[in-house]
Amino acid sequence: MERRNPLVTLTTDFGLADGYVGTMKGVILSIVPNARLVDLTHEVTPQDVRRAAFVLYSAYPFFPPHTVHLAVVDPGVGSPRRPIALRTPTGTFVGPDNGIFTYVLAREPVEELVELSRPRFRLPEVSHTFHGRDVFAPAAAHLAAGIPLTALGPSISNPVTFPLPHLEIGPDTIVGEVLHADRFGNAITSIGRLTWAGEELALEPAFQDARCKKQEAGSTGPTHFRASAAVVVVAGQEIAGIRRTYTEVAPGEVLALVGSHGHLEIAVREGNAAARLGLRGGERVTLRFGTQ
Amino acid sequence: MERRNPLVTLTTDFGLADGYVGTMKGVILSIVPNARLVDLTHEVTPQDVRRAAFVLYSAYPFFPPHTVHLAVVDPGVGSPRRPIALRTPTGTFVGPDNGIFTYVLAREPVEELVELSRPRFRLPEVSHTFHGRDVFAPAAAHLAAGIPLTALGPSISNPVTFPLPHLEIGPDTIVGEVLHADRFGNAITSIGRLTWAGEELALEPAFQDARCKKQEAGSTGPTHFRASAAVVVVAGQEIAGIRRTYTEVAPGEVLALVGSHGHLEIAVREGNAAARLGLRGGERVTLRFGTQ
Amino acid sequence: MERRNPLVTLTTDFGLADGYVGTMKGVILSIVPNARLVDLTHEVTPQDVRRAAFVLYSAYPFFPPHTVHLAVVDPGVGSPRRPIALRTPTGTFVGPDNGIFTYVLAREPVEELVELSRPRFRLPEVSHTFHGRDVFAPAAAHLAAGIPLTALGPSISNPVTFPLPHLEIGPDTIVGEVLHADRFGNAITSIGRLTWAGEELALEPAFQDARCKKQEAGSTGPTHFRASAAVVVVAGQEIAGIRRTYTEVAPGEVLALVGSHGHLEIAVREGNAAARLGLRGGERVTLRFGTQ
Repeated sequence: MERRNPLVTLTTDFGLADGYVGTMKGVILSIVPNARLVDLTHEVTPQDVRRAAFVLYSAYPFFPPHTVHLAVVDPGVGSPRRPIALRTPTGTFVGPDNGIFTYVLAREPVEELVELSRPRFRLPEVSHTFHGRDVFAPAAAHLAAGIPLTALGPSISNPVTFPLPHLEIGPDTIVGEVLHADRFGNAITSIGRLTWAGEELALEPAFQDARCKKQEAGSTGPTHFRASAAVVVVAGQEIAGIRRTYTEVAPGEVLALVGSHGHLEIAVREGNAAARLGLRGGERVTLRFGTQ
Repeated sequence: MERRNPLVTLTTDFGLADGYVGTMKGVILSIVPNARLVDLTHEVTPQDVRRAAFVLYSAYPFFPPHTVHLAVVDPGVGSPRRPIALRTPTGTFVGPDNGIFTYVLAREPVEELVELSRPRFRLPEVSHTFHGRDVFAPAAAHLAAGIPLTALGPSISNPVTFPLPHLEIGPDTIVGEVLHADRFGNAITSIGRLTWAGEELALEPAFQDARCKKQEAGSTGPTHFRASAAVVVVAGQEIAGIRRTYTEVAPGEVLALVGSHGHLEIAVREGNAAARLGLRGGERVTLRFGTQ
Repeated sequence: MERRNPLVTLTTDFGLADGYVGTMKGVILSIVPNARLVDLTHEVTPQDVRRAAFVLYSAYPFFPPHTVHLAVVDPGVGSPRRPIALRTPTGTFVGPDNGIFTYVLAREPVEELVELSRPRFRLPEVSHTFHGRDVFAPAAAHLAAGIPLTALGPSISNPVTFPLPHLEIGPDTIVGEVLHADRFGNAITSIGRLTWAGEELALEPAFQDARCKKQEAGSTGPTHFRASAAVVVVAGQEIAGIRRTYTEVAPGEVLALVGSHGHLEIAVREGNAAARLGLRGGERVTLRFGTQ
């Protein structure tokens, strides 16, 4: 019995020049010949586990829940860091235990978490430097083929996570940070997830975490504020209002808007905000609700 | 009933670093799990609708006619620009109504053209900044799955197109322009489509358009001329003869030849013509038929 | 009768910007609609046949033996260089006869080798500049669909190969060269294939070739030496010991290790060895076995 349309996504920092990704796909298709393979990205800056975690975070909810998400940004390959796989209601994840699933773990309950220790689900020879090919790709393939997660190794707990990005919700401000800039130079911030309700924006913190301090005593619901009255301060610049679309400002103008992942973004219409404002990961961003 | 091998191509300016393309593929495969997905390119210069249009133009005729071509270079996302889909005898096309299908429309009759307005064929939540994911990917997926075009929205007419590139056919010259340079630095021009007939070349304008003035009174067929006697003038340089292959000149030498899309190309054997001659889009190119 | 999961890999220097690769995929899927297509790389430096050959070499053994590997780095397109296809026990290969299969041929017996001369297995119109689309993609597709190799053209012999990289095995040294650097800046050398046996490394030359001189008279088996006692000399730098993993040295430190393809690699942990040491292809690398 074979699963009908097994689906595996791949997220790595391997780039596309060297054939490493293609090799992993060969391994997967040798095990599960009818798999569909989808690249999320292979252009993560080498060893940037956080960036890979964010790509995964923004993409995986759009895949069917039976999808296996293989993520290999693995500076610790060959060290005792554990190879793991986990399942949530939204997907199955395979990769090194180095924080790459931090955002998944912060958003969703884990149904199963195992260490990928069974040699049977690895290649016969395991190198010291390319577990993407020898350990993770075979594991992902077997899972995509329908092997239960618990067959691949013993249950474990306390997976490694990195500290969630700064997000502090006060009575009239939200303070966050720039996460990174995307290809268009849009600076994506930790202030999310924001959703529109008429002219208002509602903030429901993307991740549940001690560092995300919600200071309004007794508040449990989301924070609401009027988008047009908000002011975003970043890199010494004040940006008035949060927009729906790039086209609300003139070409070349700086704006703040809600990006497609529900996070506050700093952009320049038909331009590059990160370059213009010199924005880098970690840069402080303050959102003032303004006077109503 | 499911279509056997649904096929969707993707053309965007999203790059491959951020996971945007992968997210669109997740949306498509959630709707039509057995789709084949083929990337045409995601490396279009941000917001360069013309470049995307040319990639599409050069690739789509090589796909089966049931293919759905999803093209999202969308500087006007969130503005009132219409999301559209259209069908020609050669394929089905989905994207913003901003000129991205100009070359398709200039080459082929449109059988159907609709506005993608039915919420049923969009994601439940439509963002203001990523219609590739929320509007276009679902539409392409439903079309690939066999939903008729007319189910996705009302028929419309007069799609947006950009002015076709310059192409002027005189009694002994053809004047065109450089469109862009490809990865190899080959400068692709608007002078096409050229086909070989023995030692002669025949020009049959790629696009039917008022700006393409065929000045030979009464002429309806293609323009013929001897390739070896032709002279191409570009950037102050005269190039003698139009070649069949790079290997007809010495490494490092400039040549004119007919590119794989049937357009006149300026190249340097094993080198980069665009860099060497400083060629950019819009640069005038004159082809003189020469003395016979 | 259709083959169940036909699989075609693609290796080119076409880049991903221009739609050339997508066009080839359209051609393949028009012929064999249920093919799986896997990109090995399209980022080979333009016309770098050796680099493409190495990517192929490191990836193809990880694919099922029925896989068709299409490789098009083709500076001689349009010249009389032959289009070929060949089969080994591990795979089927399609591309120009310019040395791109040198490493395959050096590693494996050839079961069949044909010239792709039958017009029936080409596109109806064959351009002079894009045999990837017009000759090689159709051939690969027909082979993937199950057409026997010998149907595509007459058997030939003596395929073109380039000289194998330098590898000289002496009684207490191995001398090789840097092949190229990968995305991470790791310099991959011709010294391979190395396999671990406890604390020792065994060298079994990757390719059987006259230039690979094994100087120990009468020796037929591999060369063994203790990894920790070895010294690697490259670019005036002495590197003590050959490591299993990056994490055995401190971040920023230079190390020698066995890469995932079994070749000696020069790396910098979490850094770029090629940039740091100024390593380029052809740079001499000496491995001294050291005192036991």
